[in-house]
Amino acid sequence: MAKNDQPYLGIDLGGTNIQAGVIGSDNQLIATDRLKTKADGGQDAVVQRIVKVVDSVLDKAKVKVKDVAGLGIGAPGAVNHKKGIVINAVNLRWVDFPLGKQLEKELGIPIVVDNDVNVGTWGEYMAGAGKDHDELLGIFVGTGIGGGLVLNGDLYHGHHLTAGEIGHTIINADAGLGRRTLENLASRTNIVNQLKQLILANHPSDISKLTDGDLDRVRSKILAEAFTNDDKLTQVVIGQAAHYIGASIANTVTLLSLPCVVVGGGLTEALQAEWIKLIRDVFEEYVFPPELSKCKIVASELGDDAGTIGAALLAKQRLEKD
Amino acid sequence: MAKNDQPYLGIDLGGTNIQAGVIGSDNQLIATDRLKTKADGGQDAVVQRIVKVVDSVLDKAKVKVKDVAGLGIGAPGAVNHKKGIVINAVNLRWVDFPLGKQLEKELGIPIVVDNDVNVGTWGEYMAGAGKDHDELLGIFVGTGIGGGLVLNGDLYHGHHLTAGEIGHTIINADAGLGRRTLENLASRTNIVNQLKQLILANHPSDISKLTDGDLDRVRSKILAEAFTNDDKLTQVVIGQAAHYIGASIANTVTLLSLPCVVVGGGLTEALQAEWIKLIRDVFEEYVFPPELSKCKIVASELGDDAGTIGAALLAKQRLEKD
Repeated sequence: MAKNDQPYLGIDLGGTNIQAGVIGSDNQLIATDRLKTKADGGQDAVVQRIVKVVDSVLDKAKVKVKDVAGLGIGAPGAVNHKKGIVINAVNLRWVDFPLGKQLEKELGIPIVVDNDVNVGTWGEYMAGAGKDHDELLGIFVGTGIGGGLVLNGDLYHGHHLTAGEIGHTIINADAGLGRRTLENLASRTNIVNQLKQLILANHPSDISKLTDGDLDRVRSKILAEAFTNDDKLTQVVIGQAAHYIGASIANTVTLLSLPCVVVGGGLTEALQAEWIKLIRDVFEEYVFPPELSKCKIVASELGDDAGTIGAALLAKQRLEKD
Repeated sequence: MAKNDQPYLGIDLGGTNIQAGVIGSDNQLIATDRLKTKADGGQDAVVQRIVKVVDSVLDKAKVKVKDVAGLGIGAPGAVNHKKGIVINAVNLRWVDFPLGKQLEKELGIPIVVDNDVNVGTWGEYMAGAGKDHDELLGIFVGTGIGGGLVLNGDLYHGHHLTAGEIGHTIINADAGLGRRTLENLASRTNIVNQLKQLILANHPSDISKLTDGDLDRVRSKILAEAFTNDDKLTQVVIGQAAHYIGASIANTVTLLSLPCVVVGGGLTEALQAEWIKLIRDVFEEYVFPPELSKCKIVASELGDDAGTIGAALLAKQRLEKD
């Protein structure tokens, strides 16, 4: 069993970057580092890059690997957390890869693997915006929309281990194909595509100016800037996305009677309270019974560190429970 | 602690009828009975009627009340199962009524109170169509649409104790008021109302003949008869309802990664396999990831007895756990 005062490593493995962090016994980050994933190099090369960023973050933290109690890692895609296997990660082009076993062989410490969104949700639950609650939904809006659930004080994976896929729930059953799921209606990808289409159809918007005419450069910060500067087109499109997100959150709270929802992702970090308010207004209109409108809807507190902190804290929970 | 071989009482308290059952150590019904609720008489009168039907069902089963290990009761509405309080039951016009305490005073045995849909779901989980699974959604389509969840082998109530309200989830966020929630779109009430409107607008249908022209007499059996006799209007309207139910079930399975869904209620009992097939086809189209289409979708096995059996078995589980 791990000692309570040993540090833990957390890794957030993305298609583009590998982020690493070391947390101490107070669950705070001691050091962080990052490295490009270079997924094109294949599975073994990515494992070597994880080992490399682990070495450098341990150097920064002045901790030796033999003194680390364990490492948690969040991977983008379907994960069998019981076996430490990445079942399918589209961004990395991995299928049934035993990431836990490989990393354990390289580093010689216990490894805990889970899905990246689950790990981010766990971070917010243990050390972020959800830490005063026993149950919560974490929902992360980015190029896609992912969700994670904490029920009865533990991550909820479900019988087939895929729980939390709120982005793939139907919110508009009567709409045409491609306009039915939450992700298709409200991801940042969809917000940007809608704005592009409307601007190309000559709807006036400051977005063109803010991107110097290159609409492929629209990111969360630019969306937030246009929204805050009262750009009507951006406000309408973001308002629609918030409407679908608020309705989907209401559905989840209605089904699971939750006390707290943490909303994360780039747009949340850029827009903060204004974005949460748009979502909350719709949520309150739709949630049932009406008393559930007391459920807290809050912005992520850990932001970009939710994954590394959550991964480290998940390793801590799992290994200290064993 | 209750002895394993003692019988348990189960009560399904409805707005119209009180159903009672006694189960033996093999979890099978020994005897059943029913009595009108007569909710107009008020809370205390209803408690006396519950005592009356308990006496008569125990007589039938040749069991004395002092030999009963406990009584479970499902009440229609919001229930605090921890305190045995009916928080709000619209059909009975009860608010914050301590049903558990009152019945314990009258009968002198331990009482377990829960919501009627939870209790029906528990019955199907323990002794019906869901008994080979560790987790399930029970969905009951009638005048309204109710749901219950078993997660990790236990009824899931959620932080605010209201979990399972699938009928109040949004499935058509862009539709007009009254056409957004599952219950508004797919309850038997809505199916009948839609048929009435269409028939009054001169759409041809056998329903008029089957009800001798009195459209207020449409019940599940008549709907099933018209559907099976190839009445096109009934098939279209029932098909639409099944579409929304299939999409809502897909949403729940996508979110919770469930292995089993049990569908109950009068229309399910009347139509059986044809109804389940309509629901399943939509479910398979929408569930994510696609591997979850292996989730079983099955008709209730206990039918009208799900409530009494479930209530008795819930009392057994709670009291033997204590």
